[in-house]
Amino acid sequence: MSELIIWTYDWVPEAPRGFVRDIRLRWACEEAGFAYSVRTVPFDGRQANHLSRQPFGQIPFLDDGELKIFESGAGLLHLARKSEKLMPRDPVGEAQTLEWTIAALNSIEMVSVPWWFLEVTDAANKDLTDWLQSRLDHIESILKEREWLAAGRFTIADLLMADVLRVSKVRAFGDRPAAEAYVARITERPAFRKAYADQMAHFAAADSTRA
Amino acid sequence: MSELIIWTYDWVPEAPRGFVRDIRLRWACEEAGFAYSVRTVPFDGRQANHLSRQPFGQIPFLDDGELKIFESGAGLLHLARKSEKLMPRDPVGEAQTLEWTIAALNSIEMVSVPWWFLEVTDAANKDLTDWLQSRLDHIESILKEREWLAAGRFTIADLLMADVLRVSKVRAFGDRPAAEAYVARITERPAFRKAYADQMAHFAAADSTRA
Repeated sequence: MSELIIWTYDWVPEAPRGFVRDIRLRWACEEAGFAYSVRTVPFDGRQANHLSRQPFGQIPFLDDGELKIFESGAGLLHLARKSEKLMPRDPVGEAQTLEWTIAALNSIEMVSVPWWFLEVTDAANKDLTDWLQSRLDHIESILKEREWLAAGRFTIADLLMADVLRVSKVRAFGDRPAAEAYVARITERPAFRKAYADQMAHFAAADSTRA
Repeated sequence: MSELIIWTYDWVPEAPRGFVRDIRLRWACEEAGFAYSVRTVPFDGRQANHLSRQPFGQIPFLDDGELKIFESGAGLLHLARKSEKLMPRDPVGEAQTLEWTIAALNSIEMVSVPWWFLEVTDAANKDLTDWLQSRLDHIESILKEREWLAAGRFTIADLLMADVLRVSKVRAFGDRPAAEAYVARITERPAFRKAYADQMAHFAAADSTRA
């Protein structure tokens, strides 16, 4: 197998640590048992310096030998094709994993990220809050009925949905015990704990060189 | 090949016609030359009535024989696996199609949909407008340099990005000639024109039964 390289920033401020999206690729590699290394691009000047690798100046991006892939969702779907631990091989299980992975990105993250990242206030944008409320209520109904989103087992759809739902402001938004239990259960997985600890250590180590 | 069925609403108000997302799946099927039929669920009561098929009460969803897939992005990626007309078969071309498809969903649509759908005002949410401005500027730089997003040819990444960018408010937001020419070029494709005309006719026909 070709070498997997996950690219992230050399440093980020404290607030986003533990949530920087390289964690999605680290976590998937840990689940699958893939060897990988982590390399960095500068956080400073990120809007201009690495556009040849990521057209919006973001991270992560993934090298898999000659393949170069940006967008964390695309990286996850690519890795999932390489390991049954991330996605079942039968067509029905694969379709369920695909639809729920896209749902995490495009039906939940699309609504939740503007809501927390931009600190949209309820007074100014009640519509956005109502939209998020509705989506989270639908997810709550689903998670009351089942342990996993797709195929009756852990897949990258759970990895991604849990990563989207575990954001502190989203977790604190309303009393949703099924979603809360789901996030707790998925983020207790050893692969997540390892990925999280590694990301925290990576950025903490960078503080000393930056100081 | 098993029968493809695209599910959409029985009727929608005039404003969204031509933009309802079943058009993405119709368009992909037209590009690929797939036979398909269109079936409907009621627009009225959509938040509750078809949750067993689409967990957020939305459309479209796709049947491909025993496979049932919701999320338009997931449907596109599924169809793309079935036809080289939608995505090249070589690993590099496939990875590029995948990353740009996810970018259309998660880096552009995630930012643009809240901006236009929620009618966020610049005064109340300058951050959201600035965010969209930045993303569209990055896309403009890219489209100045190339005709297609992925693999030097038409793919579902262009289908999806053009569908995201062709929204009237997004097109009117700033002078971006490369993006404008791109949207014009992609939406001139016969497959898009056919899908668009079919969607318009579908909803127009429903007016008479609803009146």
